Amino acid sequence: MTKAKDIETRWWGWGDINKTYPVEERPEYVTFLEERLGIKVGELRSPDPKLDDLDIREPRLKDKSLKALSEIVGGDNVSTAHRDRVYHALGKSYRDVVRARRGQVPNPPDAVVYPGSEREVEALLKLAEESSLAVIPFCGGSSVVGGVEPLERKGLAGSLTVDLRRMDRVIHVDPESLTARFEAGIWGPELEEELKKRGLYMGHAPESFLFSGLGGWIASRGAGRQSTGYGKIEEMTEAVRMVSPRGVIETPDVPASATGPDLVQVISGSEGTLGIITEATMKVRLQPEVYDYRGLLFKEFEGGVQAVREMMQSGDIPETIRISDPEESALALRVLKPSSNPAKRFVIRNGIKMLDSRGYSFNTGSFAVLGCEGKEGETQARMKKITSICRKNGAFPLGRIAGMEWYKGRYDHPYLRDIMMGWGVMIDTLETATTWSNIMRLYRGGVSAIREALADYGSGAIVTCHLSHSYITGSSLYFIFMGKQAEGREIEQWEHLKKKASDAILANGGTITHHHGVGYEHAPWFEKEYGQEGMEVLRALKRTLDPAGIMNPGKLGL
Amino acid sequence: MTKAKDIETRWWGWGDINKTYPVEERPEYVTFLEERLGIKVGELRSPDPKLDDLDIREPRLKDKSLKALSEIVGGDNVSTAHRDRVYHALGKSYRDVVRARRGQVPNPPDAVVYPGSEREVEALLKLAEESSLAVIPFCGGSSVVGGVEPLERKGLAGSLTVDLRRMDRVIHVDPESLTARFEAGIWGPELEEELKKRGLYMGHAPESFLFSGLGGWIASRGAGRQSTGYGKIEEMTEAVRMVSPRGVIETPDVPASATGPDLVQVISGSEGTLGIITEATMKVRLQPEVYDYRGLLFKEFEGGVQAVREMMQSGDIPETIRISDPEESALALRVLKPSSNPAKRFVIRNGIKMLDSRGYSFNTGSFAVLGCEGKEGETQARMKKITSICRKNGAFPLGRIAGMEWYKGRYDHPYLRDIMMGWGVMIDTLETATTWSNIMRLYRGGVSAIREALADYGSGAIVTCHLSHSYITGSSLYFIFMGKQAEGREIEQWEHLKKKASDAILANGGTITHHHGVGYEHAPWFEKEYGQEGMEVLRALKRTLDPAGIMNPGKLGL
Repeated sequence: MTKAKDIETRWWGWGDINKTYPVEERPEYVTFLEERLGIKVGELRSPDPKLDDLDIREPRLKDKSLKALSEIVGGDNVSTAHRDRVYHALGKSYRDVVRARRGQVPNPPDAVVYPGSEREVEALLKLAEESSLAVIPFCGGSSVVGGVEPLERKGLAGSLTVDLRRMDRVIHVDPESLTARFEAGIWGPELEEELKKRGLYMGHAPESFLFSGLGGWIASRGAGRQSTGYGKIEEMTEAVRMVSPRGVIETPDVPASATGPDLVQVISGSEGTLGIITEATMKVRLQPEVYDYRGLLFKEFEGGVQAVREMMQSGDIPETIRISDPEESALALRVLKPSSNPAKRFVIRNGIKMLDSRGYSFNTGSFAVLGCEGKEGETQARMKKITSICRKNGAFPLGRIAGMEWYKGRYDHPYLRDIMMGWGVMIDTLETATTWSNIMRLYRGGVSAIREALADYGSGAIVTCHLSHSYITGSSLYFIFMGKQAEGREIEQWEHLKKKASDAILANGGTITHHHGVGYEHAPWFEKEYGQEGMEVLRALKRTLDPAGIMNPGKLGL
Repeated sequence: MTKAKDIETRWWGWGDINKTYPVEERPEYVTFLEERLGIKVGELRSPDPKLDDLDIREPRLKDKSLKALSEIVGGDNVSTAHRDRVYHALGKSYRDVVRARRGQVPNPPDAVVYPGSEREVEALLKLAEESSLAVIPFCGGSSVVGGVEPLERKGLAGSLTVDLRRMDRVIHVDPESLTARFEAGIWGPELEEELKKRGLYMGHAPESFLFSGLGGWIASRGAGRQSTGYGKIEEMTEAVRMVSPRGVIETPDVPASATGPDLVQVISGSEGTLGIITEATMKVRLQPEVYDYRGLLFKEFEGGVQAVREMMQSGDIPETIRISDPEESALALRVLKPSSNPAKRFVIRNGIKMLDSRGYSFNTGSFAVLGCEGKEGETQARMKKITSICRKNGAFPLGRIAGMEWYKGRYDHPYLRDIMMGWGVMIDTLETATTWSNIMRLYRGGVSAIREALADYGSGAIVTCHLSHSYITGSSLYFIFMGKQAEGREIEQWEHLKKKASDAILANGGTITHHHGVGYEHAPWFEKEYGQEGMEVLRALKRTLDPAGIMNPGKLGL
């Protein structure tokens, strides 16, 4: 089997270089964008950048250092090649893609190393400390907050990206305890493939799933599509092992304990600033017999929100529940691929008309995706209870086809983003979380701040929001917004919006990030949220485990 | 309503001074102890110690300090009275009760203060730092690991116990989000009473429930009777606020976030070594309609363990499940109060004979308590599924009376412990947790280490174990053991056993504590489990938040 990590990917954008998003099959979508954003797609399409055209700084490592690195990991596993350095220079945020396309790659790592064992990681950190080299841990590199971008730091002579892709072994699987231990460099597809061979399943599926891995997920406290049922990655982590420049921290493989502050929850969220996660024991489950995904249309967004709260608080919890606001629901309909079968097209069009006439509209209502996974009978019973909560709150069931359509396309949207960026569309996402009693305030505050910020640069706006990771006490909110890029001022425009929206999130009681992490893009707001004393605590952890300050400098405000 | 904290309690033992355990109503139990432990109950009963007879060190605080304390909290809320100092001198562990009864109270606090607000707590910490006074945060004082005992520390001039009982306000209740925020000094009964008025319920009920409170629960990562369903206290904590000598840490009230290391999980388990928890937002739920508790008898302990694993992994999870090993099952039968109705006695005796003849025995099998709480229909359905898992694994249902008998007596056992100690019985508990695949190994390793340690001092042994806090990936194990006190060498004997058993717990893959906490009794093993680098991290936290080292010195190995 080809490993996911062997697929050639775009350095200037998302994913498999041979894949794209067939947007030409969605003519309505393009028209909608043109109308709302004031762009002309035909005029604006820009070509993909070429690797060879990209001019980056020469590697700053001396031969002596390279030789020392080679002695640790072997010559084949140290690279200063243009290609390797470019691929590890940026993450995958909007800002990253804008810069990559314009050839603005300011701080590529001076070398990329691929250790094969924890012992090699330890030796690398020792060498890096002696040589004053920044170390940037790298798993899939899918950060959208600047988490894997090397940053300049006074006193450091260069930077070394430590790509863990070779450390992807299954260490042990314990089907009796439903746990499995992996090296941290294993990526999503291989991790699930290894579990599947044994009838098991983890069920952490972020949008980056195909091109991201375990160590990165844990380091950034990520969430997956089914986190409502299975929890975020930090809840799936039973035990973890991290190599810091000052030694190894390992937590015991026990289901719970009262032994002081929980180090799993200190390491999770540390984003490579304290050390490199090398292994983790994960909670797993039996491979589901069914994956039942369905579409629903609520008369109103509020009804959808209320339904999610009710299901969470009643204990009838789906693995996936995603409730879109009207703006996103309208977009969902427009991005739907029209059937090639005219009869089917007719049925769908008439169905939508019929729904409209009964007060269910994609333009004013709330499209929802509901997914339950598990044993057949149990899943059926649960789905029935949840559907009944939805109906009570004004939902019309759209059936399995609508759900599976979403399910099948669940990893495709980053490709569409990249295409739109080629058209001059500014498109990015923001995510947060709050308690149920505050959710509509945060929703409105977020949407209006984003709209204002887009208007400040004279752009039309599509600002959508959905709930996609819900809890008994509250939910995440995920905003997707589109505008027209301010040509030549794309970064400035983005920074303006980011500031306005992030300020609004904090002012309205949200956390600055529910699952993307902090990196450096969120650092100013993170510092406010974490508080002065919280930051002191973090700096103390840093000083203790990484006194030379070589670990992922500039991230988490450190 | 009388508050729990206004009840007069025993300073030399557990609970309400007007309550005891009617052990005379259980003649079989006493005979059993005499036979197994080689004691003679009649001969050994020792009288309760008298407060006035107790000789403790004079308070070491100068008038100037006392005046400064009075200025902060008001003169009525500072005490150097003999009584107050004795009540705050020890926790409630076996070792504490042995020492209290023998007048060994080495380090009473020099003063006890009762702040009424967070502002006062801040001022107290400032003063304590300036005056080099140790600060011991105190909620209910029910620690069984030495968590509230002042310890001598070079460079400190004295110690101050900060009792939070006046800080017991409800700050806000959010029924929509199912959260409630309290001051940390609220005790169990008042917390649930306040919630009950609003139709809500938290459901954290440790054995200490009647005489312990929120701040202590969080600081020590406690667990309650229904933790299998509702989670440990650290899982119920949505947000927390802690005053340290270097400022206030407050976490945001959000259901989840990716903003760096999780400070809730750093504060939870800090045991007063970093600061004083002043407020917390807790996850709550609707008041249950039913509390359905039932007894079961498994043919074999292994079958009981297997049943718990199956229910946890199938998702049919009870609030409470407690599976006793044969030794504990035998004890449970003997501690059962015989009915005063001869006909009923006859029925029970015959019932037990009938069970015996069908292979279900309290002497070789496993007595279990199963409890579900919630809405009537949902609870019934869940109970049915769980019971069927139990039957499949060799359980005979004993019905609701057996369950309710246990439920009614759930807070009484510490009274029985104290009576037995008066008889010269050494009785203590140990608790740990591990994964399912390791559970029987840890069980056997624990039991045999305890038996050996008791034999080393020439004592007979009753060594029991149960599972009472279970998870998808594993379970806690709770050992209760009894022996004959080595007269005059009680502490030495206990230390010998504690060492042998704790070594065995770590050697067999358990955590040194699942929910009692570390205090100073567990510190040597905690340091091993946490690891050298973990301890460095903890010391760094300490240096940052409490540079003068005044916060609960000697706990967590700090």
